[in-house]
Amino acid sequence: MVPHLITALNGPINELEQRILESMPAIERWFRLEWMEHTPPFYSSVDIRNAGFKLAPVDTNLFPGGFNNLNPETLPLAVQAAMAAIEKICPEAKNLLLVPEAHTRNTFYLANIATLVRIFNQAGLNVRLGSLDPAITGPTQLALADGGSLTLEPLQRTRGRLGLKDFDPCTILLNDDLSAGIPAVLQNLHEQYLLPPLHAGWALRRKHQHFKAYEEVAKKFAKLMGMDPWLINPMFSHLDGLDFASGEGLDALQTQTDALLTKVRRKYKEYGINEKPFVIVKADTGSQGRCITTVRDAKDLETLGLKRGDQACRLPDGQPVNAVLIQEGVATYERVNEAVAEPVVYMMDRYVVGGFYRVHAERGVDENLNAPGSSYVPLAFAESTQLPRPGAKPGASAPNRFYMYGVIARLAMLAASYELEATDPDAEVYA
Amino acid sequence: MVPHLITALNGPINELEQRILESMPAIERWFRLEWMEHTPPFYSSVDIRNAGFKLAPVDTNLFPGGFNNLNPETLPLAVQAAMAAIEKICPEAKNLLLVPEAHTRNTFYLANIATLVRIFNQAGLNVRLGSLDPAITGPTQLALADGGSLTLEPLQRTRGRLGLKDFDPCTILLNDDLSAGIPAVLQNLHEQYLLPPLHAGWALRRKHQHFKAYEEVAKKFAKLMGMDPWLINPMFSHLDGLDFASGEGLDALQTQTDALLTKVRRKYKEYGINEKPFVIVKADTGSQGRCITTVRDAKDLETLGLKRGDQACRLPDGQPVNAVLIQEGVATYERVNEAVAEPVVYMMDRYVVGGFYRVHAERGVDENLNAPGSSYVPLAFAESTQLPRPGAKPGASAPNRFYMYGVIARLAMLAASYELEATDPDAEVYA
Repeated sequence: MVPHLITALNGPINELEQRILESMPAIERWFRLEWMEHTPPFYSSVDIRNAGFKLAPVDTNLFPGGFNNLNPETLPLAVQAAMAAIEKICPEAKNLLLVPEAHTRNTFYLANIATLVRIFNQAGLNVRLGSLDPAITGPTQLALADGGSLTLEPLQRTRGRLGLKDFDPCTILLNDDLSAGIPAVLQNLHEQYLLPPLHAGWALRRKHQHFKAYEEVAKKFAKLMGMDPWLINPMFSHLDGLDFASGEGLDALQTQTDALLTKVRRKYKEYGINEKPFVIVKADTGSQGRCITTVRDAKDLETLGLKRGDQACRLPDGQPVNAVLIQEGVATYERVNEAVAEPVVYMMDRYVVGGFYRVHAERGVDENLNAPGSSYVPLAFAESTQLPRPGAKPGASAPNRFYMYGVIARLAMLAASYELEATDPDAEVYA
Repeated sequence: MVPHLITALNGPINELEQRILESMPAIERWFRLEWMEHTPPFYSSVDIRNAGFKLAPVDTNLFPGGFNNLNPETLPLAVQAAMAAIEKICPEAKNLLLVPEAHTRNTFYLANIATLVRIFNQAGLNVRLGSLDPAITGPTQLALADGGSLTLEPLQRTRGRLGLKDFDPCTILLNDDLSAGIPAVLQNLHEQYLLPPLHAGWALRRKHQHFKAYEEVAKKFAKLMGMDPWLINPMFSHLDGLDFASGEGLDALQTQTDALLTKVRRKYKEYGINEKPFVIVKADTGSQGRCITTVRDAKDLETLGLKRGDQACRLPDGQPVNAVLIQEGVATYERVNEAVAEPVVYMMDRYVVGGFYRVHAERGVDENLNAPGSSYVPLAFAESTQLPRPGAKPGASAPNRFYMYGVIARLAMLAASYELEATDPDAEVYA
């Protein structure tokens, strides 16, 4: 199924698309050189918004949970990327321990885990599943929607290593984003590869650090392309020490929101964009799609959802939001079957391995789509990010559009690499 | 288009398929360990014959010329593999010089070159074409069947480097198999990567050395799988110093052919195979599909084509055949639309990137299909070698069959790696 795209066919994004296609070998070489200096995250997914005049990543997930939404025909790309990744990390490995989200039992998520098992199996690893859920005390079968099943097993920790009964892995692959904190069982594992590293989890990770790194990457890339980085970079600021219950910090939030709206307004004026700017205020840490508010006027903050954060909006660890990212809103003007859609690009190691549209029939172009009611439309393989068609009219070729999405998604992945280097608690500091 | 396969659904190959599928992680790990010690050829293609009771590579091409026959939907796999290959060889490279066959101007071959250009372009290299044809003295456009064109340019050689006007490549990729000899312009290039190396070309390469290496690989693999290597290994012998014109060496050829037929007969008896064994006598060097004879009785050699070799069968360099490989014949019992078919698997770096069926309506199951009149049916992506379906009935699932073909093809590729190490004229010898 090829999604029928309705996208802004004119404006700066088409120029960008053309410039990106013309520069393809230079762009790929630039990435190659970056990857000589930086290590890509093991896997990642990036939510992209295309406003026609601007194209930007709005969320970079280092524990992607939608591999089941990829077109099955693109899985060989994931297998090949997994082979390349394993070869670098642990070429002699026989066993991979995959640790799924502790408490998610919905069949969509389980299908994601089943897909990951299949990918790593075909890449040459025995894969078993270790559960962070203390209720799992013995092998436990979970039914999949397709009639198959998965077996969760209790984790077994020795002083230095983590494994399962009769199963000693070289690498432990986490698919739990640690938004509920870092379980003791995962701490101080120095003999095995734990991927992604603990500081990639939401117990420690902060969105503003990612977007700070992304800003740096976007500036470098924009220099290569001779363009304004704003075309691919959402402006942002962030705020700590908020207390929505007592109202502490709310004034500062309004001030910063106002300042960001002013900056966006100025950019819109520069580009002659006749739209009302908006910002997204969201928890600075992982919120699994919760606590995300669209703000068009700083005064609205008083009446909007976040104001009621202490009741309605709790983070996954049960805590209220006390730090936020205030991010320039980027509308998504893509539609699949008339519903608002945003592309999500999946990567493994340095490679784009697939993608899908997240579609939400009941949400607006300026709203978060990662919410109950969303559905997923896989990108068909013919629409692969790696099959651009040079020479096609800008904006008219889905493969070219997807190639551009793959480039933007890889910029965000590179930013995650910068971010994880900057936030690595074990990094050696030469001062 | 998914080829409708008619294949032997019973017998040892189905057991082998089942064993290969069950051992997938172990097999992939085994390859991973082999690639830690050995360097894969830059690209390769392997012709495979499936006789139902036996499955074997019969030809390993290190200058594959049919990338245009791959399903376009599988090209992203080739792009990804090319990225991985470049990253290892010359990560900072901007330019790739591709050297096509010197004299081939047929549009199928040009489409192969156009596909390679596209793959390396998308992998991040500026690709230009340098011609070995001395008639090319300036940029020369060649029309493609799809309306596009390719530009050939004259090679420019300085003392240490090969390039084009204003084009200095890091890597030179040869797609000419050097069966007409090694042009001076390619000799003594020590500052650039010349891939494949000169000794991979038919000016120096000998088939029996490949099959000697394949025998070694097949034995190792058979040990891993606990099976008889004969199931995947075509027996062979070879003979030098033949002169078909004077008859010199013909007695020895008959004796060796007879001995090999006896060995095959013994194996058929062991496995209860009620078929008449045959051998293939072919030039020990590259013959571009020429000088290949099917022999069921050593006495037939007197009347068969090779006997007339001095008139009818000249090698691409114009020389008569004076060395032959005598190879156990493996019939191909696959059919596409009722025509005899053999699978051809394409690889880049260590990865299977696609494949097709070579189909020849006018040839028999025991004949060479690489001959005028053959056609090509690409494997659909859903039938990818990397998407096996564990649990499907052996012999009943095309993806499982193709996964097995991908394994056998990679064994042949690994053998080519062993072969090139053993025949490397620059190898350091520790004696």
